[in-house]
Amino acid sequence: MIRKHYSEVERMESKKEGFKGFFARYLWCKDDGCPNFAMRMMEIEPGGHTSYHSHLEEHQFYFVEGEPAYVDANGKETKLDVGDTVYVASDEPHQIKNVGNEVMRMICMIPILPGGDGKNPAPRPDDGGCVTKAKPSCSC
Amino acid sequence: MIRKHYSEVERMESKKEGFKGFFARYLWCKDDGCPNFAMRMMEIEPGGHTSYHSHLEEHQFYFVEGEPAYVDANGKETKLDVGDTVYVASDEPHQIKNVGNEVMRMICMIPILPGGDGKNPAPRPDDGGCVTKAKPSCSC
Repeated sequence: MIRKHYSEVERMESKKEGFKGFFARYLWCKDDGCPNFAMRMMEIEPGGHTSYHSHLEEHQFYFVEGEPAYVDANGKETKLDVGDTVYVASDEPHQIKNVGNEVMRMICMIPILPGGDGKNPAPRPDDGGCVTKAKPSCSC
Repeated sequence: MIRKHYSEVERMESKKEGFKGFFARYLWCKDDGCPNFAMRMMEIEPGGHTSYHSHLEEHQFYFVEGEPAYVDANGKETKLDVGDTVYVASDEPHQIKNVGNEVMRMICMIPILPGGDGKNPAPRPDDGGCVTKAKPSCSC
């Protein structure tokens, strides 16, 4: 058994294309000896967001704190609540935003696929693993 | 993308040996099309607990609400805090208790191993998957 408080784990800013005010705490990854999946605490500052992207790894999100919004494969944006949980399938385009005035926190789960480490998506032959997508315009 | 609030998911009481006041909400399991791992919201009433047990599946816990305690492989009990996260290795004996006066909630992750469904541990040739253990006496 290994115990830690999420706040003890280093908060690392993402410098990847399309990310703004986005920080990851890698709670349990391959480096910790996890064989199958990884838990990350993602934090987004007010006005911040991920890129609109996809990757081979499916996601399970659980929203812990703040005012999140989710942009789906059709470009539709939906405001979410604390206690919401979201499933994103493999290679499904998605974006997460903080639309509130406080830090937003979410548990972000991914599988550790061959070539992956629980921190970054597994690379594919034709890309780096995480693919930035053009967001569809949505009148919805 | 599929969205739900954890409270919309059915709360099912465990009737298994050694469990008391313990309820599971199966947020994302094999039935939902999840290929690799499962997310469950576990809830324990005041004075309730899991059995002291082990199974092939490793755990990643994230404690959301209440006053949890953890009993480790040596029988040592440790009080935990909201925001704590715990890794339990494959087949490592463990028990979770609610030592507070309100409901305790935790995110409980397991891999979906061959023969498993994300709800119950995968059965092994010599047991049902989840093995109740004798708790070591600990003077610690």
